[in-house]
Amino acid sequence: MRLRGRKGIRENIESQTDLVILNPQQYKGKWHEVFGNDNPIYAELGMGKGRFISEHSRLNPNINYIGIDMYDELIRRSSEKAREAHTLEDGTCDVSNIRLVIWNIEKIEEIFAPDELQRVYLNFSDPWPKNKHARRRLTHAGFLHKYTDILNEWGEIHFKTDSQSLFEFSLNSFADMGLRMRNISLNLHEDGPNPEHIMTEYEMKFSSRGVNIHRCEVVIGEKVLEAHLAELKGRK
Amino acid sequence: MRLRGRKGIRENIESQTDLVILNPQQYKGKWHEVFGNDNPIYAELGMGKGRFISEHSRLNPNINYIGIDMYDELIRRSSEKAREAHTLEDGTCDVSNIRLVIWNIEKIEEIFAPDELQRVYLNFSDPWPKNKHARRRLTHAGFLHKYTDILNEWGEIHFKTDSQSLFEFSLNSFADMGLRMRNISLNLHEDGPNPEHIMTEYEMKFSSRGVNIHRCEVVIGEKVLEAHLAELKGRK
Repeated sequence: MRLRGRKGIRENIESQTDLVILNPQQYKGKWHEVFGNDNPIYAELGMGKGRFISEHSRLNPNINYIGIDMYDELIRRSSEKAREAHTLEDGTCDVSNIRLVIWNIEKIEEIFAPDELQRVYLNFSDPWPKNKHARRRLTHAGFLHKYTDILNEWGEIHFKTDSQSLFEFSLNSFADMGLRMRNISLNLHEDGPNPEHIMTEYEMKFSSRGVNIHRCEVVIGEKVLEAHLAELKGRK
Repeated sequence: MRLRGRKGIRENIESQTDLVILNPQQYKGKWHEVFGNDNPIYAELGMGKGRFISEHSRLNPNINYIGIDMYDELIRRSSEKAREAHTLEDGTCDVSNIRLVIWNIEKIEEIFAPDELQRVYLNFSDPWPKNKHARRRLTHAGFLHKYTDILNEWGEIHFKTDSQSLFEFSLNSFADMGLRMRNISLNLHEDGPNPEHIMTEYEMKFSSRGVNIHRCEVVIGEKVLEAHLAELKGRK
């Protein structure tokens, strides 16, 4: 039965050629062709059940979104969320600005060329609490070097986690690499759910139980740094 | 009675000319003369009851310490702590590497010349939780500009607080000024009291009750930045 279930899931996602991409390596350097436009591309590394990227892609038709995760079942669930989010009242559904990709983030550089992305979202990544597993954390320097390569001159990393230890590790990781942080929050939904920030399924569940959500943005590209400095100057 | 008490405290601290300084403006640019040597000078801005600076000055005879607070009573209590900490088994007491200063931190630039300090400690500063009082927080940009002026090429800021909101504000304040942070901790005594970090009276009390202590260091001087970068390179 279990095998049949798995096979069914695989068949399901294989059939969704407009939304799901099973062989992303072949699109390295060619993602703008996949979307058929030159809009910026934002990728969520570890999209889980897909609420976050489905909502973002629905709200921002002029941005292209790529959700990545390793498991067939998460891709299937995310595909349902994406279609649901993009279905209009008249029943039509346009998922042209979102793609769901099966891939292992450890080899992220094999599916994106330098400067191909404008934003990387890291939402509730595995904290890998043991020190001996530190290299697997998605904010470890080894990963950050990869992100800085594939992000363009307007590139940013947006990071959220409920794990205090992962957040602490990540702040030090960003700081030690000399990356500029901004909008650091130690309790994102302190005054109730913050409507500016779309929640993941996991975040809705744990935030409602009183767990603090930590968040920060990391400025990567030169252009976004210039804009940030100009904004800070204007704020004075 | 209250007046007499106050008068007694004032007389007490006035009599401690070897330890207490009531007119610090006259030593601006001349603190090395006060200590009679060229050792680095570390200042604690808001020393409270004096445990932290008393212990540090006892353990580091080759560093000069200046503890600053606004109230006579805190100076008196800190003077007791300092003498107690520096008293040896044979009864002798040498407080030559510590001075206690009555002053308002808002006018810190009136008592220190540029490059005169090597380290600034901010321990459990008033969080001033209302936004309209943000400028009074000791990690507000207005204060940070003053600290960067009076700190030398080896200058650092070491900051501890139990206030999550003040820590969040401060991380953003450091980041927005482009200051480099390191050793960020969201729960300093997670595995029990951390012996590397001398606790203040306040910290002992609240940490033992399970309150998280947040800490970070801010790299100010060029030399300390060079050393930090070399250390990070070596760690790889």
